[in-house]
Parts: sequence; C-alpha cells; structure tokens
Amino acid sequence: MSAWEQIEGHIAAPAGFRAAAVAAGIKKAKGALDLALIVSDSETTSAAGMFTTNLAAAAPVQISKQHLAQSRGQARAVIVNAGNANAATGRAGLDISRKTAQAVAKLLKIPAEQVLVASTGVIGVPLKLERITRKLPALAAALAGKGGDDAARAIMTTDTFPKSCVVRSEVSVRPVHIAGIAKGAGMIHPRMATMLSFITTDAAINPRMLQSMLAEAVEGSFNRVSVDGDTSTNDTVLLLASGASGVAVRPGDPTRRWFMEGLRQVTETLAKMIARDGEGAKKLVTVEVAGARTPLDAERVGRAIANSPLVKTAIAGCDPNWGRILCAAGYSGARFDPGRMDIRVNDLYLCRRGLDTGFDEAAASQEFDQKELTLHIHLHAGSARARFWTCDLTHDNITINASYRT
Amino acid sequence: MSAWEQIEGHIAAPAGFRAAAVAAGIKKAKGALDLALIVSDSETTSAAGMFTTNLAAAAPVQISKQHLAQSRGQARAVIVNAGNANAATGRAGLDISRKTAQAVAKLLKIPAEQVLVASTGVIGVPLKLERITRKLPALAAALAGKGGDDAARAIMTTDTFPKSCVVRSEVSVRPVHIAGIAKGAGMIHPRMATMLSFITTDAAINPRMLQSMLAEAVEGSFNRVSVDGDTSTNDTVLLLASGASGVAVRPGDPTRRWFMEGLRQVTETLAKMIARDGEGAKKLVTVEVAGARTPLDAERVGRAIANSPLVKTAIAGCDPNWGRILCAAGYSGARFDPGRMDIRVNDLYLCRRGLDTGFDEAAASQEFDQKELTLHIHLHAGSARARFWTCDLTHDNITINASYRT
Repeated sequence: MSAWEQIEGHIAAPAGFRAAAVAAGIKKAKGALDLALIVSDSETTSAAGMFTTNLAAAAPVQISKQHLAQSRGQARAVIVNAGNANAATGRAGLDISRKTAQAVAKLLKIPAEQVLVASTGVIGVPLKLERITRKLPALAAALAGKGGDDAARAIMTTDTFPKSCVVRSEVSVRPVHIAGIAKGAGMIHPRMATMLSFITTDAAINPRMLQSMLAEAVEGSFNRVSVDGDTSTNDTVLLLASGASGVAVRPGDPTRRWFMEGLRQVTETLAKMIARDGEGAKKLVTVEVAGARTPLDAERVGRAIANSPLVKTAIAGCDPNWGRILCAAGYSGARFDPGRMDIRVNDLYLCRRGLDTGFDEAAASQEFDQKELTLHIHLHAGSARARFWTCDLTHDNITINASYRT
Repeated sequence: MSAWEQIEGHIAAPAGFRAAAVAAGIKKAKGALDLALIVSDSETTSAAGMFTTNLAAAAPVQISKQHLAQSRGQARAVIVNAGNANAATGRAGLDISRKTAQAVAKLLKIPAEQVLVASTGVIGVPLKLERITRKLPALAAALAGKGGDDAARAIMTTDTFPKSCVVRSEVSVRPVHIAGIAKGAGMIHPRMATMLSFITTDAAINPRMLQSMLAEAVEGSFNRVSVDGDTSTNDTVLLLASGASGVAVRPGDPTRRWFMEGLRQVTETLAKMIARDGEGAKKLVTVEVAGARTPLDAERVGRAIANSPLVKTAIAGCDPNWGRILCAAGYSGARFDPGRMDIRVNDLYLCRRGLDTGFDEAAASQEFDQKELTLHIHLHAGSARARFWTCDLTHDNITINASYRT
C-alpha cells in the first residue's frame, strides 16, 4: 500500500463511476448548472450516509435515509439539485423527492431505493418535480462525457468556487481512488454543517464498515468547521464504494487504517475548502487546541473559539484581541485554569499563562493579515488536542445573508 | 399595595441611596465619565448578585463574590469602571479590584467587604489603580448632588444610550421604589449576558430572599437577551435594598409577589433596552414561543431563534425568510413536529403547519421594516411559553467589533 497522493481529477475518477450535470432552471441564474447525477456502474455498490441532526430535516434527507435502510447500504445513484432545499415543504415535498428517485431509477434500470437524493437552496418553497424529470434524459445522456467537474459546479449555492478533491494510492500495482466534492458556505456549524458532500471510491468495502469509516471521517472534518453557527435542514454526506478497483478493505485489517487515511485526507481537504469559502470570508483560520484535560474539553474549547462571532470579527479587522479567545474558551464548558492558558497566532505569543505578553501590536496585526492563519491555544491541563477550521466574519457575510431569499 | 408605575428618575431615586460619576481617564475618549459610585446610607443594606458563568471570570467578579459571601449579603457601595474589564489580568488584577474596594471603604468608613466592584471594557490590559484612587475623593464629594444619571452614562461602553428604569408603588401611603441602570451592547448571550446592571430599592428585604428574587428576575430578563452569542468574563447584576422606605418584603407573604412584579418590570425594561442597543442594531425583536411541550423546550426554541445569526441578518434585510426560523427551531434540541409549526411576524402568518402561507412578499417585508417587531412561534406540542429579546445583525455590528480594541 503506497501513501495517498492528491491528484487532478473529479468525482468520477474512481473506477466504475460516471457523473454529469445540467441546467434545470431551479437556480434563479439562467442557464446555471443546478442538477447533478453521480452513477456507479458496479452492480454491488456499498453506500453510507451522514445527515443533519436538525429536527426539521428536509424531504431529500428523509428519503435518502429511508432508501439507505431499505437497500441495506446499497446505492448506485445520487441525484442532487441546488437552488431549492425542498425543506419545510410537507408531504408534497416528500413526494417530490421520492418521485425524483423513482424517475432516476427507471431511467437507469435500477431499484428506486438504490437512488439517493439531496437538495440545497431556499427553504419553504415548493420544488417543481417537472423541472427535474424533463431534464433527466439529457442528464443521463451527458453521463457518457466528463461530467465530474460539472457536478461540483452544479451543487454550489453561495459558494465562490467548486470544491473537489481526489486522492490515489496503489495496492500491489492496482490503483485505488477516493474522490469527493462538496458545497457549503453558509449555515455552517460544527454539529453536522450545512453542506453537501459526495464521495466515491473504487475500493471494495462492505456497507457496515463504510458507514463507520464515514462517521469517523466526518467527525474529524466537516463537523469541525464553523462559519455562522446555524445547522441546516439539508446537510448530507454520502460515500459510495464501487469496488471496481478490485482492492478490498476489511475490518481488523491494515487496509482499514490505510483507507481511513485517504478518506480523512479527502474530507479534511473539502472541510477546509468550505471554511475558506465561508460566506464573505477572506481568511482560512485553523484553531489548534492542545493541553486539554480530555478530548471533549479540547473539542469544547476549539468549537467555542471557532464559533465566536466576536473572535471572527476581530480576525476580520486584524485586531489581536486575544481576550475574546480567552473569553470563548472560558464559556465553552471545558475545565481548565485560565491563568495557565497560552494563546498564539502563528508563531507569535499574544498571551502566556493568562497574561498579555506585551507583544508588538503592528507585528501581531500583520500575523492576522494573512489568507491563512492558525490560532494555537494551550491549556496546560492535560494532553488532549482538537483542531477546528473557521473563517473571518466580514461585512460581506451580512450582505449575502440579509438578502439571500429576495 | 398599588400597582407599580414607571416614573422619571435615576438609580438614586429609592430612599437612602446616592450616586455619582467622574471621568477618571480609563476610557480612551478624553473627559468621558468612566467611574461610578452607588452608595446606600442605610447601615443594614441587603445585597444580592448574579455573575457570569464564564470560567475566566474577571477580577472584579471574583472580588464581589468574595465580598458578598464574607458580608453575608450586606453591601453599602458599588464601585464601577468602564473602559477596562480587568479580566485576564492575573493576581495583579485581583489585587487592584481588592484595593479599589478598600479605598472606597476607607473613604466611606464602611467595611471593605461591603463594597462591591464591577468593571467593563477591554480584556487583558492592566487596569491602573492609581487612576481610580486619585479620583475617589472627587467622586465621594459628588455624591451630594444628583449623580444618578451620570452613573448610567459612566458605565456605557459601545452603548449608544444610557439605560435606566425606575418604578414606584405605595404600601399604606408609604412610597417604595425600585431603580435600575444597565449597560451592554455586545458580548451579549442568553446565558448571563455581557452586561452590567445595578438595581436599588428602598424596600426592606433579607439577603437570602433578595438573592432568590434577583435570580428569578434575571432568568426572565437579562438571561433572555441575545445580541451576538458570546458570554462575557465580566457580567454582573447587583441588587441593593436599603429598607429606607420602611416597607418590608417577607417570604410567603403577598409582598413577595408584589415586589417581584416591580423587580421584573425593571429588569425586563433594562433587558429590552440592551437588546435594542445591540451593537449596530436598528431593531428590537421579541421572540414569543408558545405551544411547547415543556418550559425547557420553549426556552430552547426561543434561544436558538434569538441567537441565530442567519435569522438576525434576514431581519436586518427585511427578508421574510421564515425557513431560517424553522431551521433554528429544528436544531434547538426541543421536541416538536415541524409539520405543525406556525410562524408569524407581528400579525402576518408566514408559515402555518410547517408550510408557506403564500403571504404577500411586500407586506411581509414591511412587517420586518419596523423598529420593533415580534416573531410568534407556535409549536402546537403543548402549552409552555417563553419570551426572548434580540436585535437585527447589521454591517455596523461587524464594523464595531472588527476594531473594538484598536
């Protein structure tokens, strides 16, 4: 097993997958790609999913969960639309997601429960089924081509760039791939962010194992991103494994750790892209917490800091206001002694043992004036660590969100 | 006992109190009032306090808690400064708060533990004791005059107006007063907001009862305000009862309910002023949750909505984006059926039984385009209610917070 290396490519890079996207008139912008299809040609394709914890889960989330249960973790197609979340749309909405899956199934000649559905966009507005169904033949026809890049573009909403990552490794000369795309720039919260991500691999993995590995990867990546503190109704991460590489990943085998490493690389890369593309954001901020009493405490402190609007606005203003970082850690619920806390931005200490270091203001401001920066927090209370990703909070975030619907 | 009526006046309106403020050079703005003193002339003045839950509690919070414990709920003076929070200042900071109390005690000839201390402002910058002590004689001299209005002004930081409320009632022709001042516009969160409030009354109430009544009043007022989701290091609410009216409030007596009513009026009025003055805010938003299964569920839903940046930016943009309200309720942790939820702004229904009502966009936008508006949420899951106050989230909030320190 060689190390995983990042390569050029798209969601259909793993053997056995095809993808395409079309403009179906669901987004407001005329001619914008807004309907994507990802298909596995392998008859036994394992599937795993992680979904929003929001009680008001959207129709596509409910239908995808149902289908995954009914098919016992087998799925051969994912149909996604952007521009309309099909959330808070009642029974009619459920019907539309179900019928969308049925129409795709009919076209591809596969069971309906092997089609998963995802949507993103405005909440509470009925999604028109006919806009989707009339475009399905064109979408299926487009599968022949190189539609992987289009798919990444079609799922974007307020995203400013498509988010895609492909990694490759070899097992006894046989290449194995993991590819992922994601969207998400707003309604992003560490508890299963408002985002969609679809991941494909040509490794062979049973559904149960696939699900446990996906859960582990999501916890350390997408669940560690904070943009604005809202958990959406539509969050969905799906992972499909076609097995077409001929390489199997087995429980209790070194292949598990090897595959997990690649999967983690893909999900972390996509998670960081989401943070970097936070609505209105100009900076990618990594929050590294060390020296916590327990892993949970490390997570609490990281989450509170990554989620603090006051920390994020200070970063936007290049203001080395470390008091807000200490304050956020203080209300996080973690146990530690604030009088022992160290805080540094990149390599510059702002606070040592809870006190101002007398740092140079201009130098500190410069550390914050970068496209990527890291806040290091050391609690000196133990040895647990956690890492979070967030962004700065700018005027543009307000502008985008004050008029998202209208 | 007559009904409580709101009257003109200030923090020293209740019999037995005096107040004053001076400019001590702690705030950056030259000549700005930044040091206030509130004194009770009654030898037995009961005192109660509620403080931040932040682990990194500031020095004045720690000292005030100590003093309240040592004096068994007796306090005759409150000394407050704005411009410097004396937080994250280590042992030196504790020493400064303690010495401030001692200096005030010496001047007023009262025990040091009967002096309570509060600070608000920048975190992590040493507070200069000498700036306070050299001004104490002038401050004590000013107590003779009408310093109540000055005190409300001196405790302001990013506040745009002083916050004050006085109510009056009569018991057998004897007038009783409750007066309060507050500051707070940022770092405001429903779990003991970043705010200071000082309340005085001339009713006679024992310390134990005073503490329980204050806790009850704070829970339904200051703890129900959300501006930006950060819980500060310095939150403090103090209530002093001089007894100078000659009217006693006793446990298990109708006077308890009567006094509670007046206290609630003062704290609610101040809490609403804080929400209205949220950093950069243009609107006061009341969130009324009804039909919840339990009081805790009502509180969860109200808190999630009042605290959602996406809801608050939509309100700023007059965008009737009720999907975000439903979404926030959905991730609040409360149990309810989103398909039964009603949402209206003022008298206009946006969502009924989880579905869009087909409301008129322009009319809805107009409902949001008001200085005061109410979001009514009905869950149809029970009969519990909760009320929260918040504000819209605007560009100005970002501007204020991006450069608070510099």
